[in-house]
Amino acid sequence: MIRPFVSELGDLQNKILEMGGLVETSVHNSIRSLVERDESLMQGIWVAEARINQLDIENDEMATRLLALYQPVAKDLRFLTAAIKINSDLERMGDLAINLAQRSISLLSRPPFRPLVDIPHMSKTVELMVRKSLDAFVRRDAALAESVLLADDEVDELKDSIYLELLDLMQQGVAPPGPAFDLIFIAHNLERVADHATNIAEDVLFLIKGVDVRHHHLEQA
Amino acid sequence: MIRPFVSELGDLQNKILEMGGLVETSVHNSIRSLVERDESLMQGIWVAEARINQLDIENDEMATRLLALYQPVAKDLRFLTAAIKINSDLERMGDLAINLAQRSISLLSRPPFRPLVDIPHMSKTVELMVRKSLDAFVRRDAALAESVLLADDEVDELKDSIYLELLDLMQQGVAPPGPAFDLIFIAHNLERVADHATNIAEDVLFLIKGVDVRHHHLEQA
Repeated sequence: MIRPFVSELGDLQNKILEMGGLVETSVHNSIRSLVERDESLMQGIWVAEARINQLDIENDEMATRLLALYQPVAKDLRFLTAAIKINSDLERMGDLAINLAQRSISLLSRPPFRPLVDIPHMSKTVELMVRKSLDAFVRRDAALAESVLLADDEVDELKDSIYLELLDLMQQGVAPPGPAFDLIFIAHNLERVADHATNIAEDVLFLIKGVDVRHHHLEQA
Repeated sequence: MIRPFVSELGDLQNKILEMGGLVETSVHNSIRSLVERDESLMQGIWVAEARINQLDIENDEMATRLLALYQPVAKDLRFLTAAIKINSDLERMGDLAINLAQRSISLLSRPPFRPLVDIPHMSKTVELMVRKSLDAFVRRDAALAESVLLADDEVDELKDSIYLELLDLMQQGVAPPGPAFDLIFIAHNLERVADHATNIAEDVLFLIKGVDVRHHHLEQA
């Protein structure tokens, strides 16, 4: 049975939103478990990762099938190529959430050397970027997508300041190298999640503004 | 004027190969400049990055245009969706090459604390993965693509051993934290380049083996 095209597009969009929700929750819980020093908060992350990987395959396959079956043009075609790219970004964000959880587990095995303030703040900013990039996708909201691009600069600054502070604490002998590395990698991986949210926001802008802009660019090249 | 479809596909493939060549050379030169302590070897990397970014936009637009214009099915459709994903991977590999160059510049500003052996070895393995993944794409060579997946495990091991050795040297007070971090991030970014080469190899396998496998997977799910 062939279902209406628009209903299939809606399904694909919902599955992308589901992935986004899983990514956001996984990132949130990996950092919360670190702050509250409670490893049990991370239990759902590996289940979420398995579901994200399953959705990645299903969405990719669905987008390809819809391209073949309906041969869409213009806006629907852009939606499907954007969906393929957003899907791929979300799958990698799922991997990064696992990395965050692994570093958090490593950190929880040793006593904390200082209270965590910057990392939870950075994580909150990144989680919001993830949510906004997908809200912008659903609502085709260019202003919201652009706000994600702006937040990315803030995240870069936060990462640099965390990095420099930890380097300084290590040089003073306050921070042991192992845990300091773990925290630096957490900041680094949060930044990578933010980069993927930025990619999604860029895809949303392309989806909204259309191919004509880029055609124009190409004709000039 | 509408050109033959097959000729357009060939152009797209050539532009993807050009990106791959630029990525491989940029990675190679950023590490070589570090080993030979010669910053001048990095001069071409920023020019290469600009070209990679230009090709990213052009290829994305070209693939989308070909999907709309020719509404391909089966193998050609899979080629175009693979091209969109491979293009996106290569663009990010270009960003990583810039990160490698920046860390190398930072390291060249200070005296070396030990000879570099593992990093050039790791880089050589990663460069080969990049080349093989794109050769596999051009030749539709599944065995070659699978060899890239195997090499990824070796790269992960190399990264872990570099990480542990540098952590140890820092704890002994032999490696200053700043340069040790730079080297760890170089190993980390080389691993990320390898991850993207692995993504490309996976896309090539999907391109060769087709959607039917995944359809089957979906029907079971």
